[in-house]
Amino acid sequence: MFTNLEHLGLAVHDLEAATALYTTLLNQEPYKKEHVASEGVDTVFFRVGGSKIELLAGTTPDSAITRYLSKKGEGIHHVAFEVADIRATMVRLKEQGFTLLNEEPKRGADNKLVCFVHPKSAAGVLVELCQEIV
Amino acid sequence: MFTNLEHLGLAVHDLEAATALYTTLLNQEPYKKEHVASEGVDTVFFRVGGSKIELLAGTTPDSAITRYLSKKGEGIHHVAFEVADIRATMVRLKEQGFTLLNEEPKRGADNKLVCFVHPKSAAGVLVELCQEIV
Repeated sequence: MFTNLEHLGLAVHDLEAATALYTTLLNQEPYKKEHVASEGVDTVFFRVGGSKIELLAGTTPDSAITRYLSKKGEGIHHVAFEVADIRATMVRLKEQGFTLLNEEPKRGADNKLVCFVHPKSAAGVLVELCQEIV
Repeated sequence: MFTNLEHLGLAVHDLEAATALYTTLLNQEPYKKEHVASEGVDTVFFRVGGSKIELLAGTTPDSAITRYLSKKGEGIHHVAFEVADIRATMVRLKEQGFTLLNEEPKRGADNKLVCFVHPKSAAGVLVELCQEIV
């Protein structure tokens, strides 16, 4: 069950400049900055209602964000939905023909287990499933 | 004040196919279908928590969605934030150097007044401000 549009991930070239820009746009300070070594990204989070905006900048030449930026430029990279049971959702989606980018839930930013659905499965949208680690 | 990530707009080629796909992905039926003649789009809405997913297909060759699809293909087209006072937010953003795509709030889908912020102002993201018409 998809319970929330948990966050929207934006790929940015310059994290400091984008943080300043979104601080002005959203008229509030970010609440967290986090480096995710496993993904090669630095992230900055803002809250809007029950959702978050995650700014993502690549920290290695081969990170998914660095490659995305060089191919497509800045913009909305992915949408993440909170699910009640990530493993059950992964099983259901696989059975229904969606292509998952990881076979096991992996640890993402913000204390979450995550799994990505291939954009080719979801009308061009990179969908992240996430579940809080408790 | 930005109070909610109100919806995420996805540009799709085939509204019927995308509706079937997102019905399966989200494991629920859409709650509304709406034609917005002024924008040349057909829309389908799903609810996820306090946010919505809006599928958008162009109905005229010169609609913004038709042009977006022919240039960039399917994917996330815009993010819409509910704001407490759309006119005050437009004044603030203009003063702070953001480029607005309409000078006056206009009527959008789902009973909303809307204003778009140019992606060049917002790190490649087409941002919609929206406020419920009461």
